[in-house]
Amino acid sequence: MADIQKRIPVAVLGATGMVGQRFIELLQGHPWFELVALAASEQRAGRPYREVAQWRLPGGDMPAPVADLPVTACRPDALAGDVKIVFSALPAEVAGEVEADFARAGMAVFSNAKNYRMEPDVPLLVPEVNADHAAAIVGQRTRRGWAGSIVTNANCSATPLVMALKPLQRAFGVRKVLVTTMQAISGAGYPGLPSYDILDNAIPYIGGEEEKLESETRKMLGSWKEGSGFVDAPVLVSAQCNRVATREGHLECVSVELEQEVDAQDIIAAWENFVPLPQHAQLPSAPRHALIYRRENNRPQTLLDRDAGGGMSVTLGRLRRCPILGYKFVLLGHNTIRGAAGGSILNAELLMSAGRSKT
Amino acid sequence: MADIQKRIPVAVLGATGMVGQRFIELLQGHPWFELVALAASEQRAGRPYREVAQWRLPGGDMPAPVADLPVTACRPDALAGDVKIVFSALPAEVAGEVEADFARAGMAVFSNAKNYRMEPDVPLLVPEVNADHAAAIVGQRTRRGWAGSIVTNANCSATPLVMALKPLQRAFGVRKVLVTTMQAISGAGYPGLPSYDILDNAIPYIGGEEEKLESETRKMLGSWKEGSGFVDAPVLVSAQCNRVATREGHLECVSVELEQEVDAQDIIAAWENFVPLPQHAQLPSAPRHALIYRRENNRPQTLLDRDAGGGMSVTLGRLRRCPILGYKFVLLGHNTIRGAAGGSILNAELLMSAGRSKT
Amino acid sequence: MADIQKRIPVAVLGATGMVGQRFIELLQGHPWFELVALAASEQRAGRPYREVAQWRLPGGDMPAPVADLPVTACRPDALAGDVKIVFSALPAEVAGEVEADFARAGMAVFSNAKNYRMEPDVPLLVPEVNADHAAAIVGQRTRRGWAGSIVTNANCSATPLVMALKPLQRAFGVRKVLVTTMQAISGAGYPGLPSYDILDNAIPYIGGEEEKLESETRKMLGSWKEGSGFVDAPVLVSAQCNRVATREGHLECVSVELEQEVDAQDIIAAWENFVPLPQHAQLPSAPRHALIYRRENNRPQTLLDRDAGGGMSVTLGRLRRCPILGYKFVLLGHNTIRGAAGGSILNAELLMSAGRSKT
Amino acid sequence: MADIQKRIPVAVLGATGMVGQRFIELLQGHPWFELVALAASEQRAGRPYREVAQWRLPGGDMPAPVADLPVTACRPDALAGDVKIVFSALPAEVAGEVEADFARAGMAVFSNAKNYRMEPDVPLLVPEVNADHAAAIVGQRTRRGWAGSIVTNANCSATPLVMALKPLQRAFGVRKVLVTTMQAISGAGYPGLPSYDILDNAIPYIGGEEEKLESETRKMLGSWKEGSGFVDAPVLVSAQCNRVATREGHLECVSVELEQEVDAQDIIAAWENFVPLPQHAQLPSAPRHALIYRRENNRPQTLLDRDAGGGMSVTLGRLRRCPILGYKFVLLGHNTIRGAAGGSILNAELLMSAGRSKT
Repeated sequence: MADIQKRIPVAVLGATGMVGQRFIELLQGHPWFELVALAASEQRAGRPYREVAQWRLPGGDMPAPVADLPVTACRPDALAGDVKIVFSALPAEVAGEVEADFARAGMAVFSNAKNYRMEPDVPLLVPEVNADHAAAIVGQRTRRGWAGSIVTNANCSATPLVMALKPLQRAFGVRKVLVTTMQAISGAGYPGLPSYDILDNAIPYIGGEEEKLESETRKMLGSWKEGSGFVDAPVLVSAQCNRVATREGHLECVSVELEQEVDAQDIIAAWENFVPLPQHAQLPSAPRHALIYRRENNRPQTLLDRDAGGGMSVTLGRLRRCPILGYKFVLLGHNTIRGAAGGSILNAELLMSAGRSKT
Repeated sequence: MADIQKRIPVAVLGATGMVGQRFIELLQGHPWFELVALAASEQRAGRPYREVAQWRLPGGDMPAPVADLPVTACRPDALAGDVKIVFSALPAEVAGEVEADFARAGMAVFSNAKNYRMEPDVPLLVPEVNADHAAAIVGQRTRRGWAGSIVTNANCSATPLVMALKPLQRAFGVRKVLVTTMQAISGAGYPGLPSYDILDNAIPYIGGEEEKLESETRKMLGSWKEGSGFVDAPVLVSAQCNRVATREGHLECVSVELEQEVDAQDIIAAWENFVPLPQHAQLPSAPRHALIYRRENNRPQTLLDRDAGGGMSVTLGRLRRCPILGYKFVLLGHNTIRGAAGGSILNAELLMSAGRSKT
Repeated sequence: MADIQKRIPVAVLGATGMVGQRFIELLQGHPWFELVALAASEQRAGRPYREVAQWRLPGGDMPAPVADLPVTACRPDALAGDVKIVFSALPAEVAGEVEADFARAGMAVFSNAKNYRMEPDVPLLVPEVNADHAAAIVGQRTRRGWAGSIVTNANCSATPLVMALKPLQRAFGVRKVLVTTMQAISGAGYPGLPSYDILDNAIPYIGGEEEKLESETRKMLGSWKEGSGFVDAPVLVSAQCNRVATREGHLECVSVELEQEVDAQDIIAAWENFVPLPQHAQLPSAPRHALIYRRENNRPQTLLDRDAGGGMSVTLGRLRRCPILGYKFVLLGHNTIRGAAGGSILNAELLMSAGRSKT
Repeated sequence: MADIQKRIPVAVLGATGMVGQRFIELLQGHPWFELVALAASEQRAGRPYREVAQWRLPGGDMPAPVADLPVTACRPDALAGDVKIVFSALPAEVAGEVEADFARAGMAVFSNAKNYRMEPDVPLLVPEVNADHAAAIVGQRTRRGWAGSIVTNANCSATPLVMALKPLQRAFGVRKVLVTTMQAISGAGYPGLPSYDILDNAIPYIGGEEEKLESETRKMLGSWKEGSGFVDAPVLVSAQCNRVATREGHLECVSVELEQEVDAQDIIAAWENFVPLPQHAQLPSAPRHALIYRRENNRPQTLLDRDAGGGMSVTLGRLRRCPILGYKFVLLGHNTIRGAAGGSILNAELLMSAGRSKT
């Protein structure tokens, strides 16, 4: 993407929700993308964003450039003619049809919804982990007859996990992953979790989350090849997912069995020397360090580390022997930035950078 | 203990702290024990309890019977002459010497401190799990030349774990246990965890906790035999311990590998049919059900289930297959009742009931 | 109500919500009332309560006696024929018509909804404060042609305030009341306040609350007389209402201007000597002390004092001079017990006791 | 301060605590001040800051420039020779003597401690409110024989209150102020409030806070004149101070009686047109708007508005009639930025800008 003269016009679908607001926040001043359209439910269409959305992100007001932007319906023909990329923060109930409509109409859709994640022709993409999976969109277009495409990003607990595992998989091989999460309330969207359910409480259940964490991890750590498509990585993954009273940031306790016996120093080195494509290519949303390993014995902590790298880094810590699987450690990722809106934007940057997404 | 005529006079050491207050609360109206003395640090000695302690347990005032009780120093000679049992909520820094002093002076000490837990002649006792370990105090007295004895109860996260594991060990054998905890702030005592550290946060570290959870579990699931003493159970235990923003109740996500292949129904049956000694003997502090298995998919929850059985039951739920170790489930125990003061009192009831502790 | 032989059959309307669950909890084992019917929305009718309600109160399970009770629709003819009293936890959107239907059908309705509170022929009743207002139901029946009646209880922040003010009004006269509240999340019902809105936050706005707190206080401290009806007390009331991150219990900071100059001791004495009708008559739900004044400088606290008197007492503290209005103090009341379900039940007990509610 | 060539070397006293860390954070990249020394307790002296301090501010690491800075003792002779300004975050127990030592040694001390605030020759300074009080340091030096000086900033709840009141006082006169606060846990310092005291709780007491809020408000709204010194403003102030479970940001509900009858629009205009000296002079730490009035009915909220203007703006809202005092409204200020470290730095900027502090 050597000489971008003009920024690419982009839209956000589901612009009033929590992830939608993160998209808007992160797209302010983006060097490649210009946010020109916000789409929401039909009945809000035509009114300025300030009237249909209540801004809920701490630290300030609704960004001025979007306050007066009229909201459009979630239909391709409702957008101004030149939108090339749409970021979807739609709920799963509507994402299936709506995202297909936009892809059919020629747009590159970057989706947070779960609907297409496990489809055999849809990349489930974390650029630091499986950038090569993006190539699947060529066949996707052919097979589905779409002028555009859909690329999904992973569940907010799966994204930081695969980022932590990728360098281990590459260097040592990964056989088994047992993970227990402590996930923030923002992961449930808005209004999401009632306060009466979570204040002074921890809830050992998030509907569908464990299945997603297990299956998405295998797909992302797996391979994609022309002809054979996606093949899951032969990794056993077992997840227990919990909700705790934190605003943002998913904390995960992981035990891992590698294919070879290695020293702890080797693992830490693999993490610290991990400089994958987004960092090499200096994609605008790529944090300087994809992974940060902290040596204090009480880190990462949700509150202190979730904003590392602008919310795009994954913070690791407490690597030590696990008497059962070999090693255990702790990781943390920001669920609505790295695990949602920021991840989608990085996906779009990856495809723009590779020139794959021209429509 | 068929016909107790008079209640046994008991004392609480470390009576002003969080666990000390729980002891006082739970001993109110106890059918066997009469709380006659409260001991605290030297400089508070001589003043009424109401002046030296700030009552912090929700739901009411300091119990009237103790408000005017003068606090004594933590020395055997400071107690009124007839105290037979002392419950110790002393911090580890002082528990070692002080508890030995009381044991030497002929009293049966039931301790929450970690100091003596792993000693080769000290029972680490959960009556539902290893009541037979109590016999070790005979040799303890001989070896140490004590007229009295020390019996410890386990770390607040280890207690509910071994209660859940015991029926599985007995019925199927247990090979491996991988546990991740979400522990309440009261586990850190008072003042304990600063609010600035935990509000909107989760902390993946509790000093020494993982080691205790691992080693104490093996000791309690192990055997004691005259002559050979304590032998650890050959169970691999791997723990990750976290602090979350809940007041009381430790939630634990467990994966377990059994020695035989069994159906989930068998495991649930083993839990539901578990009627160990305290329930058989109807000890005063034994809950009707040592274990409660809940069938809802989102239970146990810290807030909703911690007070089950007056805080003395352990609540289980979410039993399902673990692709790595075979089965996984969730458990919850009240850390300052079952995991501390209530557990100690149950230990004392066990020994009184068996007539082993007569001094 | 000297010799009740049989308990009076009662029903709860809106039985699945937060206040509905409190009604059920508090009616378990009630000496006068027998809970025989639970009514909820039409589409749930016919199914057992356990299937249509998720029990959310900490400390245990749904009471066994109601678990299998089939839920009925909120229509008088849907109830078993002998229900005499209905407790309404209906939301304001439906309470207006539904409660009138039950009153028309001959039942004594005790309502938590705001709909009828300010009506000129409907008592807004706190038995400790304005028991004489209950007489208004005679005219209410005549005027409306109802065989039954409606009695309302006040907003959850107004109830403890008028209880604190009543003895001051009686002894010294009250001219001005300036109150700022810190209200618990349960006041918003369920699902109520999203957790993302309140964790690490305080919100200085609760829709309609300040107006209710001001107007209901004047009505309850006012008079009712045959012929002239309700006359507001000539008290200026100014309220600021805030939501804070507590589960139960409304804390209120009050400044008050009395009609006479008095000593602080006189005020405390007025509170401590306050033994109104429900305590005199020993109504089943009346706490031993309607008001509890605490002398510690940091009480009442929401967590520590909300359950005083089983949640039915109001706790006071920190009485001191206010340089502007004369005196200031702090009060606390349990919002879903004293301020809602418990208050309604006490109202019913008052009317049964007085024999006024025979239909 | 027209042509600053070099930045002025400054030190922070009490550099490891919560306010000390805020000082360090805010002084990074300061255009006028260069942080060259960190002072802490004697026993930490000589070791690098990274070893003696645990960084507790969310959003990142200890700033790199201070991590290796050796910590010095809190004595003037321990600092490098050229420090001109010291910012004190010392606790009150030691601030009295230590700050005097630094002032005597010729340094301009800007203190957060309460010790000197009410002294008759020490300015209690909020630049937007009473910049003219700074002149008192001339007499202070003479009277005390100090080569340097002490300037204090106000209690963290008093600062935003006087900022809100100042334009009203100037335009309309202020007679009475009744304020109830909901203050964040960080106001208690670190470790400060135990988590067990505040989770699911609100505490209606902060030791000494109400007195400070009342007396400091009168001093800051009062006058200073050569000869007559400080004269309190003739304003009645009555405060009730509460602690709630928020991390940062003090929310305050205010009722105010003005000297004249005005329209709400006039008050809002007075706030919105308030452009005091720091904004005129464009001091580096002055926010663009000292006061921000929000028109939504549920603002300011602690979480959403505390960071307005980088934590240096005070946010106002909900102006409406108070039936007792005339008007009521809500305000919010960031307690550890505007109410502590940021306020001190702004004070230093004011004095540097005026050239008053040359030593």
